[in-house]
Amino acid sequence: MSLVDEIIVPCCAIGLLAAFAQFLIIRKISLTPNGQDLSKSLTSGDAPEKLVPEIYAKIMDGAIQFIKVEYAICCLFCVLFSGVIYGLVSWGTKSHTQGALTAGAFLTGAFTSMLCGFLGMMIATFSNARTTLACAHKGYTEGFNTAFRGGSVMGYALCSLGVFVLWVLLTFYRKVYPEADDWEILFDCAAGYGLGGSTVAMFGRVGGGIYTKAADVGADLVGKVVAGLDEDDPNNPATIADNVGDNVGDIAGMGADLFGSFAESTCAALVIAAAAVEGSNNTLSAAGWDAMLFPVAISAAGIVICILCGFFATNISPVKVEADIEKVLKIQMVLTAILMLPVIYYLAVLLLPEHFRLEGVRLTESGHQAKIHGSPFKAFICATMGCVGGLIIGLVTEYFTSHSFIPTRELASACKFGTAVNIIQGLALGYKSCIVPVFVLSSAIFVSFQLCDLYGIALAALGMLATLSCGLTIDGFGPISDNAGGIAEMALFNPEVRRRTDALDAAGNTTAAIGKGFAIGSAALVSLALYGAFVIRLRVKTGVNILEPTTFAFLIIGCMIPYWFAALTMKSVGKAAGEMVAEVQRQFSMKDSKGKTLLTGSTELKPDSKTCIQISTQASIREMVAPACLVILSPLAAGTFFGVQAVFGLLTGSLGSSVQLAISMSNSGGAWDNCKKFIKNGFSDDVELLGIGH
Amino acid sequence: MSLVDEIIVPCCAIGLLAAFAQFLIIRKISLTPNGQDLSKSLTSGDAPEKLVPEIYAKIMDGAIQFIKVEYAICCLFCVLFSGVIYGLVSWGTKSHTQGALTAGAFLTGAFTSMLCGFLGMMIATFSNARTTLACAHKGYTEGFNTAFRGGSVMGYALCSLGVFVLWVLLTFYRKVYPEADDWEILFDCAAGYGLGGSTVAMFGRVGGGIYTKAADVGADLVGKVVAGLDEDDPNNPATIADNVGDNVGDIAGMGADLFGSFAESTCAALVIAAAAVEGSNNTLSAAGWDAMLFPVAISAAGIVICILCGFFATNISPVKVEADIEKVLKIQMVLTAILMLPVIYYLAVLLLPEHFRLEGVRLTESGHQAKIHGSPFKAFICATMGCVGGLIIGLVTEYFTSHSFIPTRELASACKFGTAVNIIQGLALGYKSCIVPVFVLSSAIFVSFQLCDLYGIALAALGMLATLSCGLTIDGFGPISDNAGGIAEMALFNPEVRRRTDALDAAGNTTAAIGKGFAIGSAALVSLALYGAFVIRLRVKTGVNILEPTTFAFLIIGCMIPYWFAALTMKSVGKAAGEMVAEVQRQFSMKDSKGKTLLTGSTELKPDSKTCIQISTQASIREMVAPACLVILSPLAAGTFFGVQAVFGLLTGSLGSSVQLAISMSNSGGAWDNCKKFIKNGFSDDVELLGIGH
Repeated sequence: MSLVDEIIVPCCAIGLLAAFAQFLIIRKISLTPNGQDLSKSLTSGDAPEKLVPEIYAKIMDGAIQFIKVEYAICCLFCVLFSGVIYGLVSWGTKSHTQGALTAGAFLTGAFTSMLCGFLGMMIATFSNARTTLACAHKGYTEGFNTAFRGGSVMGYALCSLGVFVLWVLLTFYRKVYPEADDWEILFDCAAGYGLGGSTVAMFGRVGGGIYTKAADVGADLVGKVVAGLDEDDPNNPATIADNVGDNVGDIAGMGADLFGSFAESTCAALVIAAAAVEGSNNTLSAAGWDAMLFPVAISAAGIVICILCGFFATNISPVKVEADIEKVLKIQMVLTAILMLPVIYYLAVLLLPEHFRLEGVRLTESGHQAKIHGSPFKAFICATMGCVGGLIIGLVTEYFTSHSFIPTRELASACKFGTAVNIIQGLALGYKSCIVPVFVLSSAIFVSFQLCDLYGIALAALGMLATLSCGLTIDGFGPISDNAGGIAEMALFNPEVRRRTDALDAAGNTTAAIGKGFAIGSAALVSLALYGAFVIRLRVKTGVNILEPTTFAFLIIGCMIPYWFAALTMKSVGKAAGEMVAEVQRQFSMKDSKGKTLLTGSTELKPDSKTCIQISTQASIREMVAPACLVILSPLAAGTFFGVQAVFGLLTGSLGSSVQLAISMSNSGGAWDNCKKFIKNGFSDDVELLGIGH
Repeated sequence: MSLVDEIIVPCCAIGLLAAFAQFLIIRKISLTPNGQDLSKSLTSGDAPEKLVPEIYAKIMDGAIQFIKVEYAICCLFCVLFSGVIYGLVSWGTKSHTQGALTAGAFLTGAFTSMLCGFLGMMIATFSNARTTLACAHKGYTEGFNTAFRGGSVMGYALCSLGVFVLWVLLTFYRKVYPEADDWEILFDCAAGYGLGGSTVAMFGRVGGGIYTKAADVGADLVGKVVAGLDEDDPNNPATIADNVGDNVGDIAGMGADLFGSFAESTCAALVIAAAAVEGSNNTLSAAGWDAMLFPVAISAAGIVICILCGFFATNISPVKVEADIEKVLKIQMVLTAILMLPVIYYLAVLLLPEHFRLEGVRLTESGHQAKIHGSPFKAFICATMGCVGGLIIGLVTEYFTSHSFIPTRELASACKFGTAVNIIQGLALGYKSCIVPVFVLSSAIFVSFQLCDLYGIALAALGMLATLSCGLTIDGFGPISDNAGGIAEMALFNPEVRRRTDALDAAGNTTAAIGKGFAIGSAALVSLALYGAFVIRLRVKTGVNILEPTTFAFLIIGCMIPYWFAALTMKSVGKAAGEMVAEVQRQFSMKDSKGKTLLTGSTELKPDSKTCIQISTQASIREMVAPACLVILSPLAAGTFFGVQAVFGLLTGSLGSSVQLAISMSNSGGAWDNCKKFIKNGFSDDVELLGIGH
């Protein structure tokens, strides 16, 4: 084992152990009331505690049911697509070994992603009812800690597995290509890992997203708006599907997504680092295995940093009152990012040679390829730009979506003037929230591109994802709290319990938006790095001239693709929500033998949540095909029919356009959700003026 | 006078005469009931007719009041900015003549734009009450014709003035630079005309847009949503401001906008055509004045074509029943585009040399500048791509926004599930509506770029704007009909009159969206042409490499600018609408001596529309500064601090991003508006299911 291996493997082991330890702590909370200390319980009887296991089981069943169907389709697609990859790579490189290794890496990436998504979803579902009980019996500290630990199990496990499997894969492939001269091929093959990860991510995000939003919109519309029920009312058969949705969409989907970004950015860094530089032996591959695997070492070290910081949140400075929640989460973000910096510097100095040449795409003013010289310090600065940039994006996202700050409060007070003004202002808020993140991203791109060309961009992406375990933790925290609130309501807990879970949930909405901010920011950098790796491996020496007919025409098409994608998914959500509403209305109109319905106190009828789950499952599986095909096929079609210039234009356009659309949509949504909580919980001084009660 | 002058001048003269003739026909409708044939009147008494002149005067006063303030600011800005232009150009070219001529062209463009906007607004305001009366007394044919003529006066006058003033300017400047060798400088100076036009357009669009939407949202919110009044209820003091807004925003603003696009595309074509080509005397400027002014000749000829087709709508195949309205407008669009094609071909063959060399930005595969050869046929194809492209964009826009087609009807039926689904589906509709227009635009870009490089793009833009008179006519038709409906309601006409004006208005909403589609499409082409002219005049020989640190960083910032801009204007609308709501609520709560309020039948109190107009005026003037500065200053700042690569990135990004945002917003809005009319007028078979009455 070389030096870098001795860093990577122990870090992954620590991560897996920490995840398991956190799981054991969560498991201590028993779902059955026997043996529980109910003295501090806020509930009068023990009825709520009796209802919890039943609701828990329903959510767990629904989540597993969905994930089975989704993963079956993913498996089918991935196996077929790996055949295509095998064929194309073998044909293109005239080497069956290379084809087989690339297809193998693709499948490994895809299955690791699925495993991570599944684990994350299981642990989230496992933690949500326990969070409700912790809130009910122990108060904020235990409630917060349970949800936080649930998130961290996913965070640590996903990162450790992702890094470890990649390391195993690379070590194995190195047996086939032991010579540094062959590493260009080795890392080309390994790049399939990234593609596998992001293919599953795409299905997970789209399928899970449609599922959760269809259930959410459907449940709220027919329940809250039409029938006047509370959110998560137990009589509403769609609420279970809504809670399942949080687990499959925001946990499994988000986890797979960030796994994809991590895998892609690592692969991009490796491919760029391995690319041969004309007339130079002074490259990273010539410097050896340690230098090549520097990007992987950053990710591995990040896991340990996040574990240390997580300990701070749950044990050293725990949440005591409601106001602590956001503070503790924010400290997590800041602390991990700050601690990461010296670690990255140390790793760079330790692993990288003092000077090295890199292959790049930048041109000199005379139109020739610029010579790119790297150094450990430059590499450190690139990763720092990403790491600090991610932090700033996170903080800005918090500012725009948390109801502790002006924007969301202004949005709440815009409700005085009705729905229309609220929607206009909410959209404007989302648009406005793009400004700082985009400046941050473009600064990161500018600096790291200038210093280390596209290798710098890949390092910036990895820097942003270095604290991924922490990001996933606070990201998983949100849906777990959301579910905990739903369970509190459905199990008829005392309103004070719901108030506590709501406080967690409001912080969770913000953290979910922060997580999305990280995901978007890192995805932008990753895409650029991948785009660069593509250009480098094509050996394009003249740059990408945007003022070419094909390139510019496809640039505009590229800018449009995210809108097309959004139109497809939004339409799907609308359609699926409509089906959900029809089903719920059917159930509400059914009468029992005494002529009573679900809502008028029938004792015979039970809300049939299974049918609702089936509707959401079928709709999301059916509807995820078209958007997925759009994304996968559009660059293939552009390249096949119009050549590589078309692909350049398409990638440039869709990268630029999707960043804005993603940030604005994510933050508008987060702000609206918290604006609702702000008004509902009467935090607003203005609440009477708002004219909207509790 | 050379050949091209003999084409341009008569065409402009015909346009101005036609505009005047249409004005005389509209003027025949008297606003005072004396002498009117009231036998066919649908009203029982003559009360409505007595109210009309009063309402008419209020709208006219409000519009003039706003335009005075707005133009005062525009004048101040333009005069100051012309000083900056004079200074910078004199300093850059070391020629005071060139500085003075450029500043002069800038001021000429700005004042022509203001004149056109003012004329358009006056004629629209002049026509709206007359359209109401025509609907009331004569039925659909006269009602449609009056609104259509009102639009066409603006269309013909604006185009004729725009072309004629430019021609005078060029002819005058030619006295200073008579030699073909100097024409590069001549057309550089004349390019100030385009900048002047679009500077005023920007203020007009932003100021007018904020005005009209603040009044619209304010009036509807407090009137319809809070107080339960009908739209345009005479007791609502904000309705006059709402109607004024249509005139200043959708007429004066839109007119100035399209004038700006027209002026810019012509200037871009002229600048590119005049650029010297290395090692070639075979250029357009060498071919002479006729060849150079070919783009202007297209615009001039387009005016005559549109006049002929307009005659078809009002006289040969007039509107007889409600269903005819959309049909007649659609025929206008198709007919003008088709008739334009042979005219463009004829002009190309007549004016252009058989072969000519063009300066371009395209590179060969080896990275050298490609040689561009033009011909009349190639030029014809480029203009055709624009002309037919515009038509297709128009038809697609109609499909997505008219309630005769599925998308808007689906949107209406989404209301069954409440506001939320309607909004989700409306946004999705807008996103979806980008797909075809973007493919059309990118095809136009691809083909014309391939054939004649950036000169081809400029010709495509001009081809799209060739039928501008027709576009402005059907565009002006919308706000005039909207106002006519408002007046019918406020003057307490029989509901049947309102039904007629509503039918015109619904078609008008669609045509307004079509007009915006044209404006967006042509603006995209124009921007690209201008961008190209900028690159050509900078003599950049290496293309624009998007994979440069600065360029890519600014690409993302460029993509964000339209969002920032939208956030600013939407926030402004929200703020101004809030002020409007507060004022209306104040008026509603005032009590007269008998303790009665405006809404409970006070005979003493009158709605005070003047204060509302003032609020909208002040708000829009105050709020238009920030977005305007953002747009004007961002490229200047990028260029000054980060160099020309930054400007390239910024322009590329904002061009790509703004097309999508503009199309989707415009079409979502148009569809929502017509969806409302569809439900309100009970066109839906599904209306009972919709649960929303008349």
